[in-house]
Amino acid sequence: MVDPREPIPAQTSAPPGRPVDRDTIEGLPTVGDGSGLSPDERFYREEVQLALRNRGMPLEALRYPITPTGLHYLVIHFDIPNITPDDFHLTVGGLVANPLRLTLADLQARPSVTVAVTLECAGNGRALLTPRPTSQPWLVEGVSTVEWTGTPLRGLLEEAGLDTRAVDIVFTGLDWGVQGGMVQAYQRSLSREEAMRDDVLLAWAMNGEPLPPQHGFPLRLVVPGWYGMTSVKWLTDISALAEPFTGYQMVGSYRYSQSADDPGEPVTRMRPRALMIPPGIPDFATRTRVVKAGRVALQGRAWAGRATIERVEVSTDQGATWAEAELDPAVSPVAWRGWRYDWDARPGRHTLAVRATTADGETQPLTPPWTHQGMGNNVVQTVDVIVV
Amino acid sequence: MVDPREPIPAQTSAPPGRPVDRDTIEGLPTVGDGSGLSPDERFYREEVQLALRNRGMPLEALRYPITPTGLHYLVIHFDIPNITPDDFHLTVGGLVANPLRLTLADLQARPSVTVAVTLECAGNGRALLTPRPTSQPWLVEGVSTVEWTGTPLRGLLEEAGLDTRAVDIVFTGLDWGVQGGMVQAYQRSLSREEAMRDDVLLAWAMNGEPLPPQHGFPLRLVVPGWYGMTSVKWLTDISALAEPFTGYQMVGSYRYSQSADDPGEPVTRMRPRALMIPPGIPDFATRTRVVKAGRVALQGRAWAGRATIERVEVSTDQGATWAEAELDPAVSPVAWRGWRYDWDARPGRHTLAVRATTADGETQPLTPPWTHQGMGNNVVQTVDVIVV
Repeated sequence: MVDPREPIPAQTSAPPGRPVDRDTIEGLPTVGDGSGLSPDERFYREEVQLALRNRGMPLEALRYPITPTGLHYLVIHFDIPNITPDDFHLTVGGLVANPLRLTLADLQARPSVTVAVTLECAGNGRALLTPRPTSQPWLVEGVSTVEWTGTPLRGLLEEAGLDTRAVDIVFTGLDWGVQGGMVQAYQRSLSREEAMRDDVLLAWAMNGEPLPPQHGFPLRLVVPGWYGMTSVKWLTDISALAEPFTGYQMVGSYRYSQSADDPGEPVTRMRPRALMIPPGIPDFATRTRVVKAGRVALQGRAWAGRATIERVEVSTDQGATWAEAELDPAVSPVAWRGWRYDWDARPGRHTLAVRATTADGETQPLTPPWTHQGMGNNVVQTVDVIVV
Repeated sequence: MVDPREPIPAQTSAPPGRPVDRDTIEGLPTVGDGSGLSPDERFYREEVQLALRNRGMPLEALRYPITPTGLHYLVIHFDIPNITPDDFHLTVGGLVANPLRLTLADLQARPSVTVAVTLECAGNGRALLTPRPTSQPWLVEGVSTVEWTGTPLRGLLEEAGLDTRAVDIVFTGLDWGVQGGMVQAYQRSLSREEAMRDDVLLAWAMNGEPLPPQHGFPLRLVVPGWYGMTSVKWLTDISALAEPFTGYQMVGSYRYSQSADDPGEPVTRMRPRALMIPPGIPDFATRTRVVKAGRVALQGRAWAGRATIERVEVSTDQGATWAEAELDPAVSPVAWRGWRYDWDARPGRHTLAVRATTADGETQPLTPPWTHQGMGNNVVQTVDVIVV
């Protein structure tokens, strides 16, 4: 396992990167008053700075069942590392009988699968909360679906001889930075059971091409059904632990908590959500939609991480009444499905809304579920439309 | 020439797009008080919404001489249109002897060139202004360089028999929306002289691949040296006019003006700018850099649209003193060039800065040049660093 106290590996030291030691950083500024919350509707400069780095999927791209590569949403916790593929290797260690050290070619020689996976950021919907947690300020655009190609993690763990005492598997990326005052490589873990599922992949290709730098080149984890923070990019090490992993991204972030002091519950699988392709044409500055009166085919996509989507409903009267949408088959067992609903648009202003319900009865809330970190807010999307 | 009063072409009517008539839209909301300016440092929701759609290039990607495709900065005025390549054609008309109607294959059968071009958004730097014009809130990340492949525009205009009376050439994209209260397709023009330059391209490939949807698939204009608004995406029509073109994007936007009423001067070529790869590692929320004491190789890139970059200077003391950086050759005659400067980093807080000067003596200002639309703000970049 990579020790965050070690120097930053040379390959992450993008031109002038240099190692720093943990706990030696004084004077780091905070966002706003440092409470992690914005007192009002307006946004801090630091939130905008994150939005300019981390991209959303423009909602009209919901038209594509498979998101074109450059349109996939993006969260980069630290910097995109500068990795030389010839120097790259993946290590598998900790509680295993046969530690492994593999090149990309070694991995690509293993059995491979290609599958369309819907990934969504756990913070999607954060900026719809009041007060607003100050982090990446997603409205609803932090979701996409692409085809990943890679080899199942399970086979690799079996080859390494995963010890029966192992309870957590830790995944370490090559991106380094400071968060919560701690110098760290990005690290997330999965329980042994989740890691041994058949559908967890070590992926080297996205839509049939090598991973772009910003999506984890040359190798990333892909964990279908879970929010995206679990699918560790720039993956360099896999370690099996005898005790639960307590890294920052497990215990300090990605928690459903009510305050800074509340440990809360861990964020895991995606809650159900449906989104609509905004109809008509946009106003540049406000993105308000302008639609000509008459029949309008509303369309979009819906997904969830725990159970399949069974129902999508549309409201054209600000949530007063709901009507069933038609559903397309899912793009894959772990990807979104399309929906459509014909709307007879009458002149005037309208607020459209859409909500999804899973086969086990979980449905999107009409009011946002507030948490201190703004995780898993799957409140129904609303779209303001002027019909002319 | 496309008439904005005509219905939206079917191919732009992404699932539910519908035509609307000009001047029939009532009740469009405004951003803030509608003045186009923010009264203070904090940001409106609409600005954040634009930042989430329009992506910046993460500054660590300055390491790449050719920006990987999915990292190129992005401005989409309206929606990404949904274009079926089989239905696509480019028309060339207006004051020409032989109007043309060409398929993509027709264009690709013509002589082609590939060239690396640095493009920058004219609004880059807007969010560094006080008061702040409320539009896409760029800090400094609205710039990239890729290799475009296409056929010179000049040959096509010659084949069409451009009339000697033509003074402006209008380029129309397939993206429709509302801006300044007007329904419009995105349209920009070039003077006859600029349009007939050898290096203006009709491009169908980016870094050797077909254009991605968000970058203008299947065809876009690429005008080296000019700010990016000129390089019209989703190009469908080229028309020669006997009089200056007065479309919204020429007279209502992209102006160096001092107030909403001031017509100002048109925005044309890129002003000089240098940017630095932020050294060390980032703090997640604030992007403050943490660097270990010792020699740090500061690096970055510089460009300009009117003359070549002749000098880049670095300041490590908040602009009090400046030292010359070493320069690499330009990536192409119309692309940025690399620079490097070794810094002996001593513990404490530092503000780094970098500025570029062209061969004709134009240098970056130390205070932002304010304009009502926030155009061409090439104030020197500053980077806050904590050395440990």
